[in-house]
Amino acid sequence: MIDLNSDLGEGFGVWRLGDDDALLDVVTSANVACGFHAGDASTMRAVCASAAARGVAVGAQVSYRDLAGFGRRFIDVDPVTLADEVLYQIGALDAFARAAGTRVSYVKPHGALYNATVHHAAQASAVVAGTRAFGDLPVLGLPGSELLAAAGDSGVTEAFADRGYTPAGTLVPRSEPGALLAETDAVVERAVRLATRGEIVAVDGTVLRTGARSLCLHGDTPGAVAHARAVRAALDGAGVEVIPFAG
Amino acid sequence: MIDLNSDLGEGFGVWRLGDDDALLDVVTSANVACGFHAGDASTMRAVCASAAARGVAVGAQVSYRDLAGFGRRFIDVDPVTLADEVLYQIGALDAFARAAGTRVSYVKPHGALYNATVHHAAQASAVVAGTRAFGDLPVLGLPGSELLAAAGDSGVTEAFADRGYTPAGTLVPRSEPGALLAETDAVVERAVRLATRGEIVAVDGTVLRTGARSLCLHGDTPGAVAHARAVRAALDGAGVEVIPFAG
Amino acid sequence: MIDLNSDLGEGFGVWRLGDDDALLDVVTSANVACGFHAGDASTMRAVCASAAARGVAVGAQVSYRDLAGFGRRFIDVDPVTLADEVLYQIGALDAFARAAGTRVSYVKPHGALYNATVHHAAQASAVVAGTRAFGDLPVLGLPGSELLAAAGDSGVTEAFADRGYTPAGTLVPRSEPGALLAETDAVVERAVRLATRGEIVAVDGTVLRTGARSLCLHGDTPGAVAHARAVRAALDGAGVEVIPFAG
Amino acid sequence: MIDLNSDLGEGFGVWRLGDDDALLDVVTSANVACGFHAGDASTMRAVCASAAARGVAVGAQVSYRDLAGFGRRFIDVDPVTLADEVLYQIGALDAFARAAGTRVSYVKPHGALYNATVHHAAQASAVVAGTRAFGDLPVLGLPGSELLAAAGDSGVTEAFADRGYTPAGTLVPRSEPGALLAETDAVVERAVRLATRGEIVAVDGTVLRTGARSLCLHGDTPGAVAHARAVRAALDGAGVEVIPFAG
Repeated sequence: MIDLNSDLGEGFGVWRLGDDDALLDVVTSANVACGFHAGDASTMRAVCASAAARGVAVGAQVSYRDLAGFGRRFIDVDPVTLADEVLYQIGALDAFARAAGTRVSYVKPHGALYNATVHHAAQASAVVAGTRAFGDLPVLGLPGSELLAAAGDSGVTEAFADRGYTPAGTLVPRSEPGALLAETDAVVERAVRLATRGEIVAVDGTVLRTGARSLCLHGDTPGAVAHARAVRAALDGAGVEVIPFAG
Repeated sequence: MIDLNSDLGEGFGVWRLGDDDALLDVVTSANVACGFHAGDASTMRAVCASAAARGVAVGAQVSYRDLAGFGRRFIDVDPVTLADEVLYQIGALDAFARAAGTRVSYVKPHGALYNATVHHAAQASAVVAGTRAFGDLPVLGLPGSELLAAAGDSGVTEAFADRGYTPAGTLVPRSEPGALLAETDAVVERAVRLATRGEIVAVDGTVLRTGARSLCLHGDTPGAVAHARAVRAALDGAGVEVIPFAG
Repeated sequence: MIDLNSDLGEGFGVWRLGDDDALLDVVTSANVACGFHAGDASTMRAVCASAAARGVAVGAQVSYRDLAGFGRRFIDVDPVTLADEVLYQIGALDAFARAAGTRVSYVKPHGALYNATVHHAAQASAVVAGTRAFGDLPVLGLPGSELLAAAGDSGVTEAFADRGYTPAGTLVPRSEPGALLAETDAVVERAVRLATRGEIVAVDGTVLRTGARSLCLHGDTPGAVAHARAVRAALDGAGVEVIPFAG
Repeated sequence: MIDLNSDLGEGFGVWRLGDDDALLDVVTSANVACGFHAGDASTMRAVCASAAARGVAVGAQVSYRDLAGFGRRFIDVDPVTLADEVLYQIGALDAFARAAGTRVSYVKPHGALYNATVHHAAQASAVVAGTRAFGDLPVLGLPGSELLAAAGDSGVTEAFADRGYTPAGTLVPRSEPGALLAETDAVVERAVRLATRGEIVAVDGTVLRTGARSLCLHGDTPGAVAHARAVRAALDGAGVEVIPFAG
């Protein structure tokens, strides 16, 4: 039993990014951009409607306010402002989710905010505070992160289908060899082993135990859709129940 | 029995506009900017908290997406996009309202959108569609406007405390004499007569009957706070019940 | 002898639009987005550098301030503001042009502003005023437009390679049949006839005389690059000198 | 002989900040906001015109792209992007300066970018690179900063009229006592001593020698205008020549 999550709705205005419809046929949780790093009102409506129609859970992919940088630059925003901005984004998305007959059922920070909340306790607490101001929603993050520490029982760990892991269980930095699993077979094997045995194999062969309840599939890398479909097919074939972790 | 509404939360970032706290002591309905023409997440939180603490109703002051122009320029946005943007704004504000223990209880378009929806049926319908996608909320507008026509039973008419009226019941254009009531006495008299007799006296002396349930007090004109306080004191003194029209 | 112009640099941040490099191999004038409807500083630098390296003239593709709408919605901005915004955009682009060893050598309004300045005299004059505040640059537009009327001797007319023309010489509205020439052959024939004989054939077969000194190739339609390359090859094959109209 | 500089043009759209006209009567160098943390095209035009009319030098007050945060939050923007954004801002401002008969004659980073470039060598180099891509302009900064190190001979040091200095010559952090000189007398004494003797007295009485050629007057603090006028009057009275450092 596993959840598959992916970043969706990351266009803006006339610009598109990724293949939302293809990924919505594969994943069970949609991390929907809320307008701060990407996403506009019409994109949010469309993704929420498609997700609801397929039984895919809607999550708020909250971000720094940074359209020009796609939320990929750390911003030293004060925690009070950040908590307010998280609440703003969740509320906006929830309106579209409810219009589509569902609701926002979890929160996942995007990009540089995701990375910052691994170590930045004040920003991690701000994300959780903004979330709790909305309601008692699960927060998706990395094991060992300040984000999950702040979230307490609301924290849900995820693993990455296409990222290399160190023997310590952290992600191999993107600047180092082994950071990315480029081969579909490796991605599929990662997914099936995680779902069936709760294990991840690190770059040096170490077998890691993980409590990850969700597996993140990237949507904007070359071959993303092919990887995602192969992962889903393999999980279905292995008899794994692929269902939303939240909702 | 009358409602007093005013535009609030119209700062952005470091910039301030109007005296929110002073007006919140006077009005019963706060038209809160939602981030499209003004307002940011922290402003919205602060205004919602103050409004809730005083029993002031929170309304979504929805706008075109136009920070640089403060929502004061007509934008020929397509109705589908506009409806989505209205829903986005209501949802974002509602998160802050609920965090403060209340909720968004009505919608009022701002600036150029308010003016456009007097005559522009497609944009008027879009505002109503976006509102209904959120819920069954009243929409505040001018009598005879396309906006109220589209809103049907949800439409609520308002009058302006400091604007001149033509004998036909429309507002005297700002470019013409008599467009503004500058004297506090005139503004107060307008308010009391409206609240106690349902009448507005036009620039030529014609007495107009009105079904207005709310009176709009401007917050950003010179003397705005003084006018507002005088109106409230006079209404209280006349035994008028000043309460939110919605909620 | 003809100029070929196309809209370039219309990505923003992480988002891309069109194939700038492919078009820069074909056109002689690059209408570079300046950050108001699309384009960011890095995009502008890259396009200016590529254009300069190929001897392609750099033009400022000025727009309403409207990233979310890609400059495709009319905005009723006051003319003074519009003139200032035009000047801002030209100045910003010129910095990149000069850093690349060239300079902004003409101005062309984008999208809804282009369309508005056909009939809206005040906005047309504002575009010209903003341009003249920068310098004595040619302005590219439609014959008969208020824009060219305001520009006087600085006005330069363009024709469209893939748009249908009415017998009166205006563009067939996009909602009507014949608005677009979809076939490469038709586009090529249009280009060669215009360049060699100064003629455009309208949808009903009427032969129009035109003084167009530039031919606009769309960059963001399906088959845009293929059309553009075919046009350039045909013009070269016909012995037409394809050179910038300005600079 | 000294220059007085101040941040100007820091409104946006309908919002105002500071009293530009009052300060323009006092200072000799105007750090004009360029649209990234504040300032819009019309503000830039107005300030440039007023500065030019008074013989006040126009400087580009370049910033991170952050209207919502007024450029006061560190953003980990990559240096290539930052250099491009600096060039964009200088170019835009220069168009208004030239339209007013002057030109941009120096560059000063704003807010968090100013602070970052004290220690962040890569961002400091990016500011200088963006400046040099425009031309050979002086860069205003703190003595000992990475910014001035990167600027080399183009670097110009400034001192602050109302900030406390440590015996080491650095600014007393705003969180500590003595960070601000609140009394007009102290500010005036600072200015006159700096201009006439090249000295600054630190919080503990240590007399520091400084090569500062410009004195920064804050424009948005309480009493800013009164301080500025008192400083100017005292300098004039002391026979100090108050002239732009650049231009």
